Amino acid sequence: MKKTSFALAGLVALGAAFSASADQFEDAIQYRKAAFTLIKANFGPMGAMAEGKMPFDKAAFAARAANLEALAKMPWEHFIEGSDMGDTKSKPEVWSKAKDYKAEVDKFEAAAAKLATVAKGGDEKAMKAQFGATAKTCKSCHSDFKNK
Amino acid sequence: MKKTSFALAGLVALGAAFSASADQFEDAIQYRKAAFTLIKANFGPMGAMAEGKMPFDKAAFAARAANLEALAKMPWEHFIEGSDMGDTKSKPEVWSKAKDYKAEVDKFEAAAAKLATVAKGGDEKAMKAQFGATAKTCKSCHSDFKNK
Repeated sequence: MKKTSFALAGLVALGAAFSASADQFEDAIQYRKAAFTLIKANFGPMGAMAEGKMPFDKAAFAARAANLEALAKMPWEHFIEGSDMGDTKSKPEVWSKAKDYKAEVDKFEAAAAKLATVAKGGDEKAMKAQFGATAKTCKSCHSDFKNK
Repeated sequence: MKKTSFALAGLVALGAAFSASADQFEDAIQYRKAAFTLIKANFGPMGAMAEGKMPFDKAAFAARAANLEALAKMPWEHFIEGSDMGDTKSKPEVWSKAKDYKAEVDKFEAAAAKLATVAKGGDEKAMKAQFGATAKTCKSCHSDFKNK
């Protein structure tokens, strides 16, 4: 009996997800991709500065770190239930292991926030170190939750 | 780096030492489109709340206004010289009337910053009024600088 109600609940949820409309899923995927695109647009130059491929400009780095802190909060609301299909590299684990995913997301947000704070301080060595720590949180999440 | 330097970096011709490639133009267009996509993702729900098409949730509105304030600073550095071609709706006037464009951009950034401040205050009427004022700055800029 319990099994049946779970199954029914699942079907109802599925129906609700589908009535959310294909447009909403497409929008959700587009919005989270836009967030990651902008994360890349800011992360890239910080990386180039950290690796000496670009002159280290503390003010520019700090501005990008501030952007990143804000952007780090933006993709997640768009991982709506049902948006695991279509033009996305998200693994099903984003939804099936939602708690683990959330833990990875929290680590990234915290690292990005710390990077912005450290960057305001203007200590180049500390900025590079915290950039590295932030990059690790990207990698760690991608390995479990993003297809290549 | 102040927001103006980012905007200027995008609007002023790049240094002679820096030769931009087709890839860089494509990236620039992709990055600024991503910024506008996220602006839309946050602007839309605020508009729906302001127009009563969605329940007015002050906290959600304030969070979106904070996102918008941050996002409002992000598209402009990507309007680099030479990125007026390709898959873009930007009019040539973005570059040929760079000073006027910059003035419109500044108006939008200021309106978005004020919206975030007003939203923190939690006065629904004031939030709706400042949302309207911000929307006007979008329209005003689009009419001169964006193709339909």
